[in-house]
Amino acid sequence: MSGPADFDVVGLGNALVDVLAHADDAFLAAHDRVKGSMTLIDAEQAERLYGAMGPGIEVSGGSTANSLVGLASLGGRAAFVGRVAADQLGAVFAHDIRAAGVHFAAPPADGGPPTGRCLILVTPDAERTLNTFLGAAAEFGPEDVDVDLVRAAQVTYLEGYLWDQPRAKEAFRHAARVAHDAGRRVALTLSDSFCVERHRADFLALVEHDVDILFANEAEICALYEVTDFDDALQRVDRHCEIAALTRSAKGSLVISGSEVHLVDAVPVPGGVVDTTGAGDLYAAGFLYGLTHGYDLGTSGRLGALAAAEVVSHLGARPETSLAVLAADLLA
Amino acid sequence: MSGPADFDVVGLGNALVDVLAHADDAFLAAHDRVKGSMTLIDAEQAERLYGAMGPGIEVSGGSTANSLVGLASLGGRAAFVGRVAADQLGAVFAHDIRAAGVHFAAPPADGGPPTGRCLILVTPDAERTLNTFLGAAAEFGPEDVDVDLVRAAQVTYLEGYLWDQPRAKEAFRHAARVAHDAGRRVALTLSDSFCVERHRADFLALVEHDVDILFANEAEICALYEVTDFDDALQRVDRHCEIAALTRSAKGSLVISGSEVHLVDAVPVPGGVVDTTGAGDLYAAGFLYGLTHGYDLGTSGRLGALAAAEVVSHLGARPETSLAVLAADLLA
Repeated sequence: MSGPADFDVVGLGNALVDVLAHADDAFLAAHDRVKGSMTLIDAEQAERLYGAMGPGIEVSGGSTANSLVGLASLGGRAAFVGRVAADQLGAVFAHDIRAAGVHFAAPPADGGPPTGRCLILVTPDAERTLNTFLGAAAEFGPEDVDVDLVRAAQVTYLEGYLWDQPRAKEAFRHAARVAHDAGRRVALTLSDSFCVERHRADFLALVEHDVDILFANEAEICALYEVTDFDDALQRVDRHCEIAALTRSAKGSLVISGSEVHLVDAVPVPGGVVDTTGAGDLYAAGFLYGLTHGYDLGTSGRLGALAAAEVVSHLGARPETSLAVLAADLLA
Repeated sequence: MSGPADFDVVGLGNALVDVLAHADDAFLAAHDRVKGSMTLIDAEQAERLYGAMGPGIEVSGGSTANSLVGLASLGGRAAFVGRVAADQLGAVFAHDIRAAGVHFAAPPADGGPPTGRCLILVTPDAERTLNTFLGAAAEFGPEDVDVDLVRAAQVTYLEGYLWDQPRAKEAFRHAARVAHDAGRRVALTLSDSFCVERHRADFLALVEHDVDILFANEAEICALYEVTDFDDALQRVDRHCEIAALTRSAKGSLVISGSEVHLVDAVPVPGGVVDTTGAGDLYAAGFLYGLTHGYDLGTSGRLGALAAAEVVSHLGARPETSLAVLAADLLA
């Protein structure tokens, strides 16, 4: 049985600084990039792609870290576990996540690869294509898991991207075990349909046995169950984990838990969608805030939709407006 | 006499990466900052202020560098001379200015202080307050001046901020001499009214003897002549340099050259002013593009107003939209 929690959510993820630049479809084609996907790149590829990219802006990112910043912006208590190097981008990452109110105590790694970065190409349709050089984050392992933090949080949140690195995978399993042993819940985001393709068998087993709360978008859940129709995927997912929150961009989201189902409309973006980077991350932030603060699943889904709408209204994957203020009416 | 020019403008300035974060008036007061001003800070002060600031975004900046990026965005040929270190922020600065189409060939400095940064606090009134840690830029000296570039450019553009560092001041004088010896013109921006206060006698002598094209905003030109009324300053300026372009934010700008006077309206910003960082830099960009492409002074002023309106419509001091496209109607 779990005791009182010091944190609502502790998240494990890749600590990355995003470098965002505009690009057109021809640029993606010339660099063999599949729009909307995440590709892992090495230092040399990162150098080459960066050289070809237009002028960028740098914003601290990383999927889990974005979610935790969103949670904090709603007033939640969030802690991040991830690995940066002792360099300028590491200092930027640590500053930004702490300044946003997220607990982050891991010391930067001395020596080894530099702090990871994600080169993000934003096309005119507001879609984002990610190119991740993990750097220091690639060395994330079980020894980086702060077990006291995991035990002290209501929910341990894991990003599917971690599954691409063998030692991060161990860290992921270790954290899930510690959380469950402490009577806590484990949440997973599938992160990316290509990531799901790479690790389908593992993810199926995880969802069945280790995950209490699953986040996935339409492409990811279809990839997991090897179907092309969202409704077909839906027929499979509800048998597995306690809660699944499935997002469908402008079509809204569906939250299912046993026989309970909530259809949640997307929140309109008055000025139009500028950049979809972080939409899924912020949906998870809103949802987990609701869940860990005693709101019902429908309200939690609506909080997710509200947070996602804020983050797609501007460039970058972290909220620019206080989500607590935006959510005040919904939670009144 | 000058031969054909390879560049329209070569600019000498501080190579800085901007770190922008929102702050309120209370934050400025608590940190003894004067709204709208630029303060030089050392490494320790930078550390302390950064620790207290909210989450930031990083965008390559530096006053002169911003102007050159604006000039390139209009289709002009621009070259930058400045000093970065061989570190991550130095690589970001070099990437962004080159990706924007500005020639920048100086190798990064090995060892010594890190690449400079400017901590920018943007208040809810869209005003910006600058806190500059010069880092590698503080070591800029005459040996950094690429004399071939200076000789090859129609205009050599200098930022008043350089006057804060003794060796940068020498570099500045050296470049102005080389430019004039090659039959080229020298432009100066006064940069900041507090900078003018610190160096009034020098700036007065410069404007009288060494500067052909002067850029100043209302506060700066009033500080230069120790008057409180813009019209009083105006009575002084026209006797000195060949061309003066004086900006007054939403009140527009005034371009004077001998007996020729142009009153240029500000260009409206439909969505409202978001962040005034870079407004003066981009005005200079548009003006210098016009001047070096054979447009009259009124059109040059209108190009300045158009470029400034673009940059204040979003966070950050570099254009997000092609200025050449925005200016197409004006230049048709």
